[in-house]
Amino acid sequence: MPQSALRHEIAHLGHVELFTPAPEQSLEFFVNVLGLTENGTDGDSVYLRTWDDYEHHSLKLTAAATSGVGRTALRASSEEALNRRVLALEERGLGVGWADGDTGIGPTYVFRDPDGHELELYWETERYDPPEHLRPALKNQAQAYPGRGVGVRRLDHVNYLAQESEVNGQFICEALGGRVTEQIRLDTGVISGQWTHFAQKSYDIVYTNDWTGSNGRLHHIAFTADTRDDILRAADIALDSGVHIETGPHKHAIQQTFFLYLYEPGGNRVELCNPTARLVTAPDWEPVTWTEAERARGQAWGLKTIESFHTHGTPPVA
Amino acid sequence: MPQSALRHEIAHLGHVELFTPAPEQSLEFFVNVLGLTENGTDGDSVYLRTWDDYEHHSLKLTAAATSGVGRTALRASSEEALNRRVLALEERGLGVGWADGDTGIGPTYVFRDPDGHELELYWETERYDPPEHLRPALKNQAQAYPGRGVGVRRLDHVNYLAQESEVNGQFICEALGGRVTEQIRLDTGVISGQWTHFAQKSYDIVYTNDWTGSNGRLHHIAFTADTRDDILRAADIALDSGVHIETGPHKHAIQQTFFLYLYEPGGNRVELCNPTARLVTAPDWEPVTWTEAERARGQAWGLKTIESFHTHGTPPVA
Amino acid sequence: MPQSALRHEIAHLGHVELFTPAPEQSLEFFVNVLGLTENGTDGDSVYLRTWDDYEHHSLKLTAAATSGVGRTALRASSEEALNRRVLALEERGLGVGWADGDTGIGPTYVFRDPDGHELELYWETERYDPPEHLRPALKNQAQAYPGRGVGVRRLDHVNYLAQESEVNGQFICEALGGRVTEQIRLDTGVISGQWTHFAQKSYDIVYTNDWTGSNGRLHHIAFTADTRDDILRAADIALDSGVHIETGPHKHAIQQTFFLYLYEPGGNRVELCNPTARLVTAPDWEPVTWTEAERARGQAWGLKTIESFHTHGTPPVA
Amino acid sequence: MPQSALRHEIAHLGHVELFTPAPEQSLEFFVNVLGLTENGTDGDSVYLRTWDDYEHHSLKLTAAATSGVGRTALRASSEEALNRRVLALEERGLGVGWADGDTGIGPTYVFRDPDGHELELYWETERYDPPEHLRPALKNQAQAYPGRGVGVRRLDHVNYLAQESEVNGQFICEALGGRVTEQIRLDTGVISGQWTHFAQKSYDIVYTNDWTGSNGRLHHIAFTADTRDDILRAADIALDSGVHIETGPHKHAIQQTFFLYLYEPGGNRVELCNPTARLVTAPDWEPVTWTEAERARGQAWGLKTIESFHTHGTPPVA
Repeated sequence: MPQSALRHEIAHLGHVELFTPAPEQSLEFFVNVLGLTENGTDGDSVYLRTWDDYEHHSLKLTAAATSGVGRTALRASSEEALNRRVLALEERGLGVGWADGDTGIGPTYVFRDPDGHELELYWETERYDPPEHLRPALKNQAQAYPGRGVGVRRLDHVNYLAQESEVNGQFICEALGGRVTEQIRLDTGVISGQWTHFAQKSYDIVYTNDWTGSNGRLHHIAFTADTRDDILRAADIALDSGVHIETGPHKHAIQQTFFLYLYEPGGNRVELCNPTARLVTAPDWEPVTWTEAERARGQAWGLKTIESFHTHGTPPVA
Repeated sequence: MPQSALRHEIAHLGHVELFTPAPEQSLEFFVNVLGLTENGTDGDSVYLRTWDDYEHHSLKLTAAATSGVGRTALRASSEEALNRRVLALEERGLGVGWADGDTGIGPTYVFRDPDGHELELYWETERYDPPEHLRPALKNQAQAYPGRGVGVRRLDHVNYLAQESEVNGQFICEALGGRVTEQIRLDTGVISGQWTHFAQKSYDIVYTNDWTGSNGRLHHIAFTADTRDDILRAADIALDSGVHIETGPHKHAIQQTFFLYLYEPGGNRVELCNPTARLVTAPDWEPVTWTEAERARGQAWGLKTIESFHTHGTPPVA
Repeated sequence: MPQSALRHEIAHLGHVELFTPAPEQSLEFFVNVLGLTENGTDGDSVYLRTWDDYEHHSLKLTAAATSGVGRTALRASSEEALNRRVLALEERGLGVGWADGDTGIGPTYVFRDPDGHELELYWETERYDPPEHLRPALKNQAQAYPGRGVGVRRLDHVNYLAQESEVNGQFICEALGGRVTEQIRLDTGVISGQWTHFAQKSYDIVYTNDWTGSNGRLHHIAFTADTRDDILRAADIALDSGVHIETGPHKHAIQQTFFLYLYEPGGNRVELCNPTARLVTAPDWEPVTWTEAERARGQAWGLKTIESFHTHGTPPVA
Repeated sequence: MPQSALRHEIAHLGHVELFTPAPEQSLEFFVNVLGLTENGTDGDSVYLRTWDDYEHHSLKLTAAATSGVGRTALRASSEEALNRRVLALEERGLGVGWADGDTGIGPTYVFRDPDGHELELYWETERYDPPEHLRPALKNQAQAYPGRGVGVRRLDHVNYLAQESEVNGQFICEALGGRVTEQIRLDTGVISGQWTHFAQKSYDIVYTNDWTGSNGRLHHIAFTADTRDDILRAADIALDSGVHIETGPHKHAIQQTFFLYLYEPGGNRVELCNPTARLVTAPDWEPVTWTEAERARGQAWGLKTIESFHTHGTPPVA
């Protein structure tokens, strides 16, 4: 299959499941601080959606003994693409198998990345139809804009921790048609972080090395807000809501994302980011590789990378 | 008394009373759309405060048969200044008399401007002490920033309608030590609008001519938000909250205020404005006078002044 | 060929040629008001680039007897895609033929849309290598950010006028793999405007009906700025630079673009828009169709569509 | 004299003189990075103005052997106020004497604060009359808005280093009618920083303790920009202009100023700040006192105060 066709087999990141040992406080955080909207429950899980999501939910928040990331769902770009990707996953021995879809989606194929994170791929989806009180004034919008908390627009990306970022990034590229847009190469030659994307948006799935040597952990999930001002306002909201601000607002050198990192009450790191999409339009984009020396200069405007960025992941490990 | 001393007799606009025939909906608007916080009730009135107000309340919302403005409270810059202003008001025959202060303020002197709007002047005030759940993270802030609706910072100004703007503007200057910063002069020589201020902020009390020849009516009250982005976001919130947007966001030529005009459910016009303060620092500032021809060019970036701006005031008249 | 593969045959809008009867003033506008950077000349043309463009130029400004749009260049997503599209164009009898590429690009295939606008398709391109004084601090950026004028990031879209929008929009979809994301349907059933896109960005090529019945004319070209604040600041810059502001800043209902429309000195309409990219991620997005009644409500926050929006196009016609 | 009258003897900070050992590069910085406009020269000095300044200049940039601050000019609120303040200064033995005013101002009274910084007080001033090419579109604006660099609006404040902040802050209050709005009290009881203001704007003159025990040095001068977005954009401009970013953008806990600190090429620290004015409207505002423990928490959103903030002042000392 030619590269350009492979590239668009995955349409976009659909939703992600997050585990929390503090389900009530986490729910309060996502609803009132980030501004997500509840859209049903299932057992110990609550479905939550950002206002610009055309599907059923963006986040599945699940009560659990500890924190961390559950299953991440990717939407295929067609039914054929879905079937082609299943074959590729089975060839690699990473498939788990077909399952009935979660609420809002059709049949889904569950698989694992080499590091063990669980993902799923689906094609059929239920287009969100808002109830009367959430109906937007403009028909090209999925849901009314909530005047509550930060008002994040969309789930933006997932940043996994992995024993070997490169092995996992390569898997995303070869099995799913992703591309590496940026990466970090240590002086030893080891790739310690890889940013991959599926379409024009410059990254969707990120791997960074887990200093503990554990498997399947999460660095952070990220939601996008409409403006850099929204991110600054988010910091003010976090401050007066008692939410832990880890670092920011500032601008990353890598991907030039304007960021704010918070810890939700369950302990998981959540990034708020802008722009809503930095585009990589070139179909032959060459990955940008950052050296240790370049990373030592800190973030775009000089902020040093905070120590906990290299030590905090979920679930916590001894 | 020298001009410079007279100038600072009034410290700032304290709060304003607004009448509404739709008290529940109006309350919902001020609390959830603008983001004010309730701070007690008194009979048919609810006290509401912006988060940056150091006093008890910024707005007194009173259920009434119709819309319009009630009493506007100004804080004197000292007890002596208060007493001096009372003498000046009595000399002009515009005093109504001393009254026990409203909740949160001490003895207050009630008076009327020549057009009949009721105002009051006070010195003693109760500094706001937030309850635990509204305590701000930073001690130089009056109240926690609410992550709700627009989150307006402060009551900014009151724009009265009057039969003769100039007579009333002159009253503000001569009796209270205000200064005219900008005004509109019609081709007939009539001053049809006057912007007056008490300190560095470029306007606090505005008069514009009432086309109906009525007395004591309101054009609008205004709240300031922190950024121009907050005003844009306010338009998004209004749109999806079903609040009537009259005009804006755009930038006024006069005072260069970035504005958005809404009608609260009781029918009163409410402006959201930025910056939080345009400074007129010059103690000898010469009023800027706009001609009809200049006004015909529209607002700063060319938006034509909306027709209802010249026909809607509260309470409505036949 | 399956739909999903066809869809990504075009990678993105490359650059556009604009004709101007006032070349010096137009150049001054693009360099000092919008903040583009000169990158060479060719006869009567000057090449100009936005700072985030990875290719040689974003705009070719050509001195001419009158205003209007010259050739629009699209980059194919691969050499194979280019060849496949050439076949499709030839089948439709709309091909003009292969030409040597313009400065910065390789062999290019020239063609016309049904309305007669000239376009070209290319694959080979020269990656921009900035001279020392334009070298960016961050290596994932094409060129240093210019602290000059608006500082637009990227050429965003072209809006052509056409006798029949639908015929042309259909051509973009069938011959080039575009998709319609939004459109206007008059009460007569006529589609009077169509917004098409090639990838995740929600529109790249727009057709709106030409009220004069002419062919090959331009409604506007658009550049994206990073924030809504940049657009507001652009209005301030335009105001004090003597640039004609046609309408805005405001937010479109269609596509929800925050906009400002200017006339460059040659008479062509130029839009400044934000966000940098509104994403349409769904591979099965259903076109949003706006009725006349919905259009009559004006733009997102209620601004009425300005009359000249329906009467000004370039080149002017009698 | 009653307190309230004394309070307004000083109208505002007029302008400041800065010494630079790199006059050409400093001039380039102020003109092209900050966006100031030249307004004449005098010997080794260049006069520069922000676009919202109604007077002749905001900054006098003087070539010198080393960096540091020259004379700071304050405008009195009237001729009488000027004369009263001169008496008060002479009583304290801190007067230097009357001098012919600098370009643009009338007779001026030169004096020193206890730490030895030179200041002057004046009443007469020349209102700025822009040349044709700098004439603004709106008549309530001093000068056309420059689309160049950051485009700072106004000189905001001066932050001196002093052996004893409290002695100097007290001098500003007692001799000039300033008020302390915020301060830092060390565990030893020593006041290590004091923020004083003259009118509604929450600070104009700041003193922080000089760790070297030197006299008459400068911590920074500050210019205000219109939005927090302007400050973020300023960081992007600084980054690609090779200007040293010391810290920020972030929000101070003290005064809640959104800030960015740069070093201009002559070595002086320059702050860019927003909002354009945080108001302290209360005439009986009680100073907010920060403890060491509170300061240890860092800035508003948690950024640790950068080490050089406590070690870099101008001129440098051994």
